[in-house]
Amino acid sequence: MRKAQSREGVGGYIITSSSNVLYYTDSTGGGILLSVLSEEEPLLLTSKMNLEMINAEAKDCKIQIYERKNLLETLLNPLRKAEPKTIGFDTLHLELYLDLKEKLEGFELKPKPEIVSKMRSVKDEEEISKIRHACEIADVGMEAVRSSLREAMREYEVAAELEYAMRKKGAEGIAFETIVGSGPRSAYPHAGCTDRQIKRGDFIVVDAGATYRGYRSDITRTFLAGHPSAEQKRIYETVLKANEGALEEIRRGAKARGVDARARKIITDAGYGELFVHSLGHGVGLEIHESPSLSSESKDTLRVGNVVTDEPGIYIAGLGGVRIEDTVLVTKERAERLTKFGRSLEEAII
Amino acid sequence: MRKAQSREGVGGYIITSSSNVLYYTDSTGGGILLSVLSEEEPLLLTSKMNLEMINAEAKDCKIQIYERKNLLETLLNPLRKAEPKTIGFDTLHLELYLDLKEKLEGFELKPKPEIVSKMRSVKDEEEISKIRHACEIADVGMEAVRSSLREAMREYEVAAELEYAMRKKGAEGIAFETIVGSGPRSAYPHAGCTDRQIKRGDFIVVDAGATYRGYRSDITRTFLAGHPSAEQKRIYETVLKANEGALEEIRRGAKARGVDARARKIITDAGYGELFVHSLGHGVGLEIHESPSLSSESKDTLRVGNVVTDEPGIYIAGLGGVRIEDTVLVTKERAERLTKFGRSLEEAII
Repeated sequence: MRKAQSREGVGGYIITSSSNVLYYTDSTGGGILLSVLSEEEPLLLTSKMNLEMINAEAKDCKIQIYERKNLLETLLNPLRKAEPKTIGFDTLHLELYLDLKEKLEGFELKPKPEIVSKMRSVKDEEEISKIRHACEIADVGMEAVRSSLREAMREYEVAAELEYAMRKKGAEGIAFETIVGSGPRSAYPHAGCTDRQIKRGDFIVVDAGATYRGYRSDITRTFLAGHPSAEQKRIYETVLKANEGALEEIRRGAKARGVDARARKIITDAGYGELFVHSLGHGVGLEIHESPSLSSESKDTLRVGNVVTDEPGIYIAGLGGVRIEDTVLVTKERAERLTKFGRSLEEAII
Repeated sequence: MRKAQSREGVGGYIITSSSNVLYYTDSTGGGILLSVLSEEEPLLLTSKMNLEMINAEAKDCKIQIYERKNLLETLLNPLRKAEPKTIGFDTLHLELYLDLKEKLEGFELKPKPEIVSKMRSVKDEEEISKIRHACEIADVGMEAVRSSLREAMREYEVAAELEYAMRKKGAEGIAFETIVGSGPRSAYPHAGCTDRQIKRGDFIVVDAGATYRGYRSDITRTFLAGHPSAEQKRIYETVLKANEGALEEIRRGAKARGVDARARKIITDAGYGELFVHSLGHGVGLEIHESPSLSSESKDTLRVGNVVTDEPGIYIAGLGGVRIEDTVLVTKERAERLTKFGRSLEEAII
C-alpha cells in the first residue's frame, strides 16, 4: 500500500471499507485505517466497542480510539502531516467527505479505490487456499440441495438444507444472501428466497456461497423439477455452453470484455441474447463483488491470481430462468474451476 | 412521502437505499426512486437485470430502465422539473452526489434522510405483525441453540443449529450475520463466528435474528458452559437487571437518552460502567439498525409503534462478556417484549 502511495503521490490514504481494513491488518473489527507516508506505521482508529477485538487481531499498525463526536479532528491531525499534500481514500461517506474537504485546506482530496482494489484482485497462495476451501464448502451445500430437493418444498426450506450443510462443513457465514428462485421467480436474477412451493416443471435457481477465514465463494446451479420441455432443454444447454465457452477464454492476459463477449455470442447465436440481462462475472475475495469485472464495458485484463465468477444466464419472464455459475481461478495456462459441483442437465433433474 | 416533501419544500426527492425503495414500492428489486412533486407518480429507475422482478412487485410508481452510462441524464431530466428547486435525498454515493451537484445548476441538493427515517420508525399494524413473526422465528432459533449447545461444540456449529431452525420456521433469511462469541471472544460485541470450541466456564454470546417479509428481529442470549463463578453470576445478573430496568422506561414519550441512562446507571452502580462499551439499542424494521437510537447522545423521543432493541452488555477482556437483548415494541402503556425466549441465569446454564 505504501509503495503504491509513494508511486502515485498520495501522501495520506484513508481506508474506511471494513474488507480493506481486514486485508491490511488481519482484523475483522472494522474502523478507519490511515496511512500517512511520513509516519512509521499506519494508524487504525477504532470505536471503544471494537477495541478489544482489534487489540487481539490487528497487525502492523498503531491503534487509537475515536469517538463519533471527535472523529473529524482525530482524522485531521495525522492527515495534515501528509506529504505530498494529496489525500486519497478508498470510499468515504458523503458527510465525512464534505467535512474533510472543508477542513483540509491546501490539500487535494481524491478517490483512489484502485490502490487497494488492484492489489486485492491478485490473490496470493494463502488467499487462494482460503477461497478454495470456501468453494469446497459451497459444493457441499449444493450437494445437500440436490439430495433434498423435492416438489412441494418451499424455497426457504431449500436454503435451510444448503446453509446447514455449509455451516456444518465449517462456514463462518454465508457469502451473501442465498438465492432460491423457483418457477417464474427463477427469471429474477436477484430473486431472494420466499415461501413459494416448488412445482413440477419449475426451474429452481440456487445461488449461494460460503465465507471461510474472510474469503468467499460463489456458485449457482439450476435444477429442474421433472423432465425438461424442449425449450427448457435448449435454454439449459445454451447456458452451459456459454459457461464452458467463457471458461476457455479465461487465462492470463485475456481481456475481461472478451470473455464476456464469448459467452454472450453463444447465447445470442441461440437467439437469447436480449435475455442475458447481466454481465458475465465479477471478482471474488474478501467481498463477493470485487475487481476485476467481466462485463462488456470492462477495461480489465486478467492476471494470474485473479478469482472470478463465470455466470451466464437466460431469463424468460413467466417461464423462468437458468444460470450456471462457477468461481474460477486464473492461472498461467488455463482457468481452474474452484467450484466443482456437477453441471450437466442429467444432474440438474430432480 | 409527498406530504413530507411539500411540508419541507423538497421539490424532488431521490431514494437510493433499497430498504427505502422497498418501503415505498413493495419491491425488493432495488433501483432508484424519484419523487418529483410536479409529476403525478414517483418514478422507479431500474437496471435491465431487475426489471421483471420490479414489474411483478412494484406498486404506485412508474418504472423506467436505466443503463449505468446514462444514469446521470436519466436522473437529471425529471429532477429539473422540481419545484421548489430543492432536491433532497436519503443517501447518495459520493460520485453521484458530485455529478448531480455539478449538473443541477440553480438547484439546492441536500441530505434529507429524516423524511424517510421518521416515517419508517413508526410501524403500522401490518409491519408490527411481520416483526412479531420475525421475533417468533428468532425465539425458535434460540431454543435450538439451548437444546444443542454442548462443550466442545464449535461456534459455527452453534450458528448452524440456530439458522437451520429459523429457516425451517420460515425465515426468508438471517437479519444480519449471526454472532457466536465464546470464551474470551464473548468480550467482543461484534465477535462474528469462528471454529473455536466451547470450553467449560465459557460465556457464549449468541446474537441473531430472522427476516420475514422484509422485516427483521434481533435477540441476544448469553449462555454459560457449567456452573457460574461468583463474578460471572454478578455480571450476568447486572446485565439482566439493566435490561429489565430499561424495559420499564420504554414507553410513549420517553426520551431515548433516558432509557439508555437507566440501563447505564444500573451497570455503573455495580462497578462495570466503563465496560458497557456501546449504546443500549437501536430501531429495528426493514433494516437491522434504523431510527430511533437509544444512546446517551440520542435526541429521539419514543413514539407508539417504534420497535427498538434493549441490549445492555458488560465486556471484560480475557474473561468474556454478557449481553442480553430483546426486540421491544413501544405501546401506549408500556413496552412489549417481542422476543420472549427465557433470560434467567438458570435457563442460561448448559
